[in-house]
Amino acid sequence: MTWLDLPENTPFGLDNLPYGVFSVAGAPERRVGVPVGDQVLDLTAAAAGTAAAFAPLLTGGVLNPLLAAGPPTWREVRESVREWLTEPRYADQLRPHLVPLAEVTTHLAFDVADYVDFYSSEQHALNAGAIFRPDATELPPNWKHLPIAYHGRAGTVVASGTPVVRPHGQRKPRGADAPTFGPSRRLDIEAEVGFVVGVPSTPGTAVSTEDFAAHVFGVCLVNDWSARDLQAWESQPLGPFLGKSFATSVSPWIVPLAALEHARVAGPRQDPVPLDYLRTSEKWGLDLTLEIRLNGHLVSSPPFATQYWTAPQQLAHLTVNGASLRTGDLFASGTVTGPERDQRGSLLELSWGGREPFALPGGLTRTFLEDGDEVAISASAPGPGGTRIGFGEVRAAVVPG
Amino acid sequence: MTWLDLPENTPFGLDNLPYGVFSVAGAPERRVGVPVGDQVLDLTAAAAGTAAAFAPLLTGGVLNPLLAAGPPTWREVRESVREWLTEPRYADQLRPHLVPLAEVTTHLAFDVADYVDFYSSEQHALNAGAIFRPDATELPPNWKHLPIAYHGRAGTVVASGTPVVRPHGQRKPRGADAPTFGPSRRLDIEAEVGFVVGVPSTPGTAVSTEDFAAHVFGVCLVNDWSARDLQAWESQPLGPFLGKSFATSVSPWIVPLAALEHARVAGPRQDPVPLDYLRTSEKWGLDLTLEIRLNGHLVSSPPFATQYWTAPQQLAHLTVNGASLRTGDLFASGTVTGPERDQRGSLLELSWGGREPFALPGGLTRTFLEDGDEVAISASAPGPGGTRIGFGEVRAAVVPG
Repeated sequence: MTWLDLPENTPFGLDNLPYGVFSVAGAPERRVGVPVGDQVLDLTAAAAGTAAAFAPLLTGGVLNPLLAAGPPTWREVRESVREWLTEPRYADQLRPHLVPLAEVTTHLAFDVADYVDFYSSEQHALNAGAIFRPDATELPPNWKHLPIAYHGRAGTVVASGTPVVRPHGQRKPRGADAPTFGPSRRLDIEAEVGFVVGVPSTPGTAVSTEDFAAHVFGVCLVNDWSARDLQAWESQPLGPFLGKSFATSVSPWIVPLAALEHARVAGPRQDPVPLDYLRTSEKWGLDLTLEIRLNGHLVSSPPFATQYWTAPQQLAHLTVNGASLRTGDLFASGTVTGPERDQRGSLLELSWGGREPFALPGGLTRTFLEDGDEVAISASAPGPGGTRIGFGEVRAAVVPG
Repeated sequence: MTWLDLPENTPFGLDNLPYGVFSVAGAPERRVGVPVGDQVLDLTAAAAGTAAAFAPLLTGGVLNPLLAAGPPTWREVRESVREWLTEPRYADQLRPHLVPLAEVTTHLAFDVADYVDFYSSEQHALNAGAIFRPDATELPPNWKHLPIAYHGRAGTVVASGTPVVRPHGQRKPRGADAPTFGPSRRLDIEAEVGFVVGVPSTPGTAVSTEDFAAHVFGVCLVNDWSARDLQAWESQPLGPFLGKSFATSVSPWIVPLAALEHARVAGPRQDPVPLDYLRTSEKWGLDLTLEIRLNGHLVSSPPFATQYWTAPQQLAHLTVNGASLRTGDLFASGTVTGPERDQRGSLLELSWGGREPFALPGGLTRTFLEDGDEVAISASAPGPGGTRIGFGEVRAAVVPG
């Protein structure tokens, strides 16, 4: 099916073909790339070499022009790449544009416009409630009526690999009279799934759930770093701010919606039935399995399929007040947490608020992150014929401030 | 002092010289402009014509390249403009680049990177608390320790004059079992002062209060439109989202800090003494007086000098966790409200939560905004020698959704 020599069970088979931006040593110019097997196709060069009509969309060193081009172009590019990589007549022409994956440096794949973070895992919301308010066992009253969200800081969304500097800030120890200042003592992760908007929407006009795929290009992984002590002290009444705004890491390869057809499942039953603008006729739950590794050790495998609110519902909610979308908008799921202990998407939950340290190999334990810790989040989803679609890691190490 | 014929008491005298972006009928290209008297100097053309070294910064149709250039360039441009407008030998050359203010269309002056909204008026915070929680008469426990803020939606920051479409959304009437959906019934304004960041900062590094003027270019007016019913239902636990994200209007002319030297005053005494990173040696309270007009009728004159947290403190807080600044970041003061009834910066406060309608001429009253209402916010500040520095209005009308 391909003239390429693809490794067995590669996360980057011909049914995946995600997009990112990379450079190689000695040639710092950023190009659009498509990982396939253990190589990356330099799509910028390949499109120029084949004089593809879409070649000009790939020259800016970010995906934004491709994102803005819309579904017909997205299909055309994807079909062209598949054709190039399967028809032997393209082999000689394309081979010079394949670079070993191990030799590329990946960059932030798109210029982020606005960043919105949802809070759509019921299990996570229940856990967070129970940890912070041990006598409260219920969700907030609005939680099952709307997908709760807040705006994050777009300017500190960073590429996988960028070190995360431990943030300083105010925190007020329990029982203290006044806050103290210093490095966060409860630095945490949140394993999330991000959706990347391609096609803008008209100001003053809501985007319906049915138009999801007309606007959203694809999916990445997000680590929404969180300083729990800063967040706890600052968040009332206007929500999280400095506890989140120091860094948000995203995975290098954006998996197009077209690669996730086999991952689509019905979301959980919603009770109460949501208001009209939140109803969907199509299945847009996504059967992704995330994996969180701390210093190389698998600590959790959160399932995405059980998220209460789906991405089309999130998009419809985000725009129902007339707020417009721009190319490069990123909205993330919120922490993905399943019902089991080893399916929790944050250290807050894995250590139950720091009260129950969890084990690492070598007799080590953790509650929150220590300097030098490295966190990697990956994911996979069902592809056709028993294959798996891989997402590639979002990875970063914590460095002292 | 000038070869120009300046109207007496003009808000745009030679000590003001704010910057904006405009076009004229028949010539849609956007140029950088400086209002002076009742004209606008086409700075893009004037700089090109005089072969000024900074001319290339003014050709993009937005202020961002000028903002990014930093204080030495800001000084050079300001001194050049003053020289051109005062030295008679420039009159013949410059006169063709003066356009009547009444004939220009103004545009959003800069591409907004991230938008942050503070909550720094003590009187506003006290009023909001009393209106929403009649038995609570105190500020939130963190309020006097840090300037509370949240991130807003940068993509819906719009130019003055852009109509504001009444947002739809969920709201839950008191006592109802479930939320209903429809147009907001409590559409409000917030009169605020905005600060525009020019020079970026390094990720992972805090910006001290002393470096405020090395990063911030100037000041504008902001109307942070708010749908109180949407906001009330959605805001717990993560803060305002759709209640704010449909539109934020900004005034057309950015007043440089250099024009506000005579407006600088000591802020109010802060008790408790803030943590070290929030202390300032310079006076950065600003003696601006805002004016809010509803359908042409003056309804309030909020004083900015009494804001509890100053802009350098807000900037230091915003970055103390290592969050970096980008050119075009906008941070706003939060609603500006003084102690008197006619100094309240929102209709929420003017109508005390809708319970006390306020009067308009012709026997009319208002609680919140009706379709067709037009709101204009202006401001002025002391200049040298008893003159006033004017800000120019941020104005918009409400249209049905």
